[in-house]
Amino acid sequence: MGTLIFIGMGIWNENDISVRGLKELVDSDVIFAEQYTGRMQEGSIERLEDAAGKKITVLSREEVEEEKTILKEAESKRVALLVPGDPLISTTHISLKLSAEKKGIETVVVHSSSILTAAIGECGLQVYKLGKPCTLAMWGKGFEPTSSYDVIADNFGRGLHSVVFLDLKDRCMDAKEAIEQLLKIESERHRLGEFKLVVLSRVGSGEQKITYGRPDELLKTSLGKPPFLLVLPGKLHFMEEEALQRFEI
Amino acid sequence: MGTLIFIGMGIWNENDISVRGLKELVDSDVIFAEQYTGRMQEGSIERLEDAAGKKITVLSREEVEEEKTILKEAESKRVALLVPGDPLISTTHISLKLSAEKKGIETVVVHSSSILTAAIGECGLQVYKLGKPCTLAMWGKGFEPTSSYDVIADNFGRGLHSVVFLDLKDRCMDAKEAIEQLLKIESERHRLGEFKLVVLSRVGSGEQKITYGRPDELLKTSLGKPPFLLVLPGKLHFMEEEALQRFEI
Repeated sequence: MGTLIFIGMGIWNENDISVRGLKELVDSDVIFAEQYTGRMQEGSIERLEDAAGKKITVLSREEVEEEKTILKEAESKRVALLVPGDPLISTTHISLKLSAEKKGIETVVVHSSSILTAAIGECGLQVYKLGKPCTLAMWGKGFEPTSSYDVIADNFGRGLHSVVFLDLKDRCMDAKEAIEQLLKIESERHRLGEFKLVVLSRVGSGEQKITYGRPDELLKTSLGKPPFLLVLPGKLHFMEEEALQRFEI
Repeated sequence: MGTLIFIGMGIWNENDISVRGLKELVDSDVIFAEQYTGRMQEGSIERLEDAAGKKITVLSREEVEEEKTILKEAESKRVALLVPGDPLISTTHISLKLSAEKKGIETVVVHSSSILTAAIGECGLQVYKLGKPCTLAMWGKGFEPTSSYDVIADNFGRGLHSVVFLDLKDRCMDAKEAIEQLLKIESERHRLGEFKLVVLSRVGSGEQKITYGRPDELLKTSLGKPPFLLVLPGKLHFMEEEALQRFEI
């Protein structure tokens, strides 16, 4: 039987993989990657190919979820699956890991940096005040879910910070689109009242930009480039307040 | 002016640092490390010294917190501070970063794997159901804080998962000591009722052990070696239930 190794690529580019992860790539027979649970800097996969000295096949969401392509190879070979961020954070990958184990395939996990802890740290917020995270869905015709708003409002009411991931489909959701969506729901539900937001752009990169302010101010300001992430801070400790002041509009 | 680089060491040993982090070590003039916010595998610091080709000075909690030693060097040199896990998760390091910025010292952050996301992923639990994390304090004479129990009970009442870090002083808190402490408070407060716990030992290492069961069962079972971490799952999705069954006593 073979081995399936889940390797986190971390938050921005090919250098965010761990030393152990890179070693595992070099020792693998086959390398797959997915780019639908997160998006690395352009060219990162190609540069990892150079570093590993072998080809990396990027799989579609469907190919990862139907599992066959990966499990077939892993029955007899040492297969690596490169995943953006920390590799088991997506349910898809847990499911794949369980399927592999059921077939008697050995599984290995190589962890890496995650946008969740990186965002909290970059803002200067305390992880002990982190509420339930959520993902804001991209609205389309007849599809305007509001469940993330409830998560955020619940956290806010309890004084907790909300990390709000933005939807990723064929494109990364824009920060201003996300803010407008939140404002639209707030205008109907009124659970937040006065609030400020942190907009994080390209966390962990040399182009990282963090902006903090009221939603109406943020909509008039340049917020950087995608991918974005929002943090809606809860009750602030003075140290957190001081940390956020650095990013105030 | 110099530069202060916060470099995450990740969750277990010297190979969990990112490729970028290792490059930064090689390019630094001075390297400090701390081991009080987390503990790496024995020998990790020494092996990082070999990899970086230079000496690493391990600082005490006091030396990091009074900031002088680090800031003085960073005024004119390229100084790296190695931190277990993702480097800005501890408030101490945010405070140090703010102090450095006030002095005009450039700061750089190199993220790494964190026990928070690694633990959730290894259990097979969903990050979207993660409640507020907490740290269980080691009890001593006349010092028996119970605030973490309230955090856990609040999360549990809302169906959310609790990641419970265990105190780290001159020793890592034992998992059974932590379970007994929780049971003692529960016997007075009765907010949890029936509950099961996940005990994680040495997450991200080759010796990782995960055990899942009722507290009374766990107390009679071998749970692995420190460092430990507890997860008290909230309401389980069937996929989470299936994932946890792998670790059931």
